[in-house]
Amino acid sequence: MNHAEAHCELCASPGGVVLWQSAECRVVRVDEPHYPGFCRVIWNVHVREMSDLPPARRHALMTVVFAVETMIRELFAPDKINLASLGNMTPHLHWHVIPRWAGDRHFPEPIWGRVHNEGATARPQVGDDLLAQALQRALRGIAETSP
Amino acid sequence: MNHAEAHCELCASPGGVVLWQSAECRVVRVDEPHYPGFCRVIWNVHVREMSDLPPARRHALMTVVFAVETMIRELFAPDKINLASLGNMTPHLHWHVIPRWAGDRHFPEPIWGRVHNEGATARPQVGDDLLAQALQRALRGIAETSP
Repeated sequence: MNHAEAHCELCASPGGVVLWQSAECRVVRVDEPHYPGFCRVIWNVHVREMSDLPPARRHALMTVVFAVETMIRELFAPDKINLASLGNMTPHLHWHVIPRWAGDRHFPEPIWGRVHNEGATARPQVGDDLLAQALQRALRGIAETSP
Repeated sequence: MNHAEAHCELCASPGGVVLWQSAECRVVRVDEPHYPGFCRVIWNVHVREMSDLPPARRHALMTVVFAVETMIRELFAPDKINLASLGNMTPHLHWHVIPRWAGDRHFPEPIWGRVHNEGATARPQVGDDLLAQALQRALRGIAETSP
């Protein structure tokens, strides 16, 4: 383990409740009461940028990201999906897949922008089991590994 | 043209100086003095989400996004790349490809977050011709169309 990996929280821990995982990546639930369904897709190995992966691995990772998007749209019917790979604080490749609703806490800004709707209330949550099952359906055909 | 398209600024205009385009999408330069190299990759047709595209078209779009990332890394050597598809205000599929530097105006937050470094100065710019040429190299093999 090199220096970067030794100090990386996504190397040291799963980064959340794991809903699905393969040999290459994992999907974790993000605890954000205003954004139920918000998940992160984390590449298992410490890699910095998408262009550091070979093209076939980029494609495999995006296939999982888009399956998470599909699952979120089916379960939560958001008005918009936000996708982002940032990693300024944790430069270990991970994607945010975020459901957005007109009138949610930050809408129409990204969730990292200022709060627009102070009065927005938390939205109904869905249990981890239901999330994991929906994800398995969306990811059918991609080899899952045991926790 | 339906109602959504009639009111969409990315249907009505290119959305910036076009550096490269294909039959499916275009790459435009974003004028942000703190983030030279910042580009947007815009799907030409009015589509809302990545999962509204067939898988092969998603893959084709991401190939262009990753080529833009490669071009930005080669020309500007940023500390990090930020990728995002948001579209809360303009729900017409487009990707932000943003070079980030430790100490830049918003680092380590996303550029939509609060300003962290008021004193950060604008970075050296690169001309459109050089950007377009570097993009053509990164996108070699993908059919370009005339402006």
